[in-house]
Amino acid sequence: MIHYPDGTPYKEPKTKQTYTKKGTEANRGMSLEDDINKSNEYYRENDICLITKRPTPINVVKVDYSKGARITDAYFEKESTTDYNGVYKGRYIDFETKNTKSKTSFPFANIPEHQIDHLTRVLRHGGIAFFIIEFQSLDEVYLIDASLIIERYNSRERKSLSYQEIKEKGLIIERSYNPPLKYIDAVNKLYFAE
Amino acid sequence: MIHYPDGTPYKEPKTKQTYTKKGTEANRGMSLEDDINKSNEYYRENDICLITKRPTPINVVKVDYSKGARITDAYFEKESTTDYNGVYKGRYIDFETKNTKSKTSFPFANIPEHQIDHLTRVLRHGGIAFFIIEFQSLDEVYLIDASLIIERYNSRERKSLSYQEIKEKGLIIERSYNPPLKYIDAVNKLYFAE
Repeated sequence: MIHYPDGTPYKEPKTKQTYTKKGTEANRGMSLEDDINKSNEYYRENDICLITKRPTPINVVKVDYSKGARITDAYFEKESTTDYNGVYKGRYIDFETKNTKSKTSFPFANIPEHQIDHLTRVLRHGGIAFFIIEFQSLDEVYLIDASLIIERYNSRERKSLSYQEIKEKGLIIERSYNPPLKYIDAVNKLYFAE
Repeated sequence: MIHYPDGTPYKEPKTKQTYTKKGTEANRGMSLEDDINKSNEYYRENDICLITKRPTPINVVKVDYSKGARITDAYFEKESTTDYNGVYKGRYIDFETKNTKSKTSFPFANIPEHQIDHLTRVLRHGGIAFFIIEFQSLDEVYLIDASLIIERYNSRERKSLSYQEIKEKGLIIERSYNPPLKYIDAVNKLYFAE
């Protein structure tokens, strides 16, 4: 079992997918991230909102400046936040993207405790917090408010949210050529509807 | 001259200071960053706001999983945003920290164009954007709204902001044991005063 310097078990970071092929799942996982990144680029260029992906925290141990500041030794730090944050209509936006192959539910095994803590704090400070969940087998992507998942996560009554519940309480995100995922439309309906 | 893969000149990233000693300047530079990070931790733990440092973007080329996912080849990507962002009283907060040894002015040579573009967009979307500037020789730290620097930066009339102007239009940030830099007090005065 691989461990972090602080002794906690090592989890392979999502961004690994950007430099190692991991087959269908990783590619799918990557494509959701790609679609969000492309959408954020579109939203930025068209002055709709400013939302960026947080880089994966990496602890750099050694740099070879003779090779043009090439990093020769480093390790992944534990992430303490979510993947995306930014500003829309003056409000703070914070969200995490997740994939599941399940057709019936989104298992919380995919959510590390620190993300629940982070999103709980975001809500406490008046920010907008949600999850973007892709049901890969159904090729459907939903936006669901973080409070629903946090509440269920803490209640421990069930370790997942059913597809039906997400379908009812969340909003489906429409795909298009550009932006690939029109998630701001869902944000408008959920948080900015008059 | 070292260049990025895209051909633009390489600039040594600030976070280099976390793993190479660069003498007084770097240590000072680091200590401002350290003070902000410690302050953010204090503000987080005391539920005052949720502001985090963006990790330095690093492009990972090779990972040795036999060594416990040790990164053996990677390089620094160009940063496209600022160092810090988060949420306070529902509002989006975005800022950059800078040091200068000058006693008389803050030279814009310290500000890459992409940060001006990013902060301009933050303001356009209704976020709160500012710089935290440390005059090292005076041991004084100021918070100044980004719009003042953006305006001057674009006017090109002068490539710096005078210490006097920062003193008049900015707010001095009080030091304390914890938080080391009470910059939220300045944020309150500047953006949330009734």
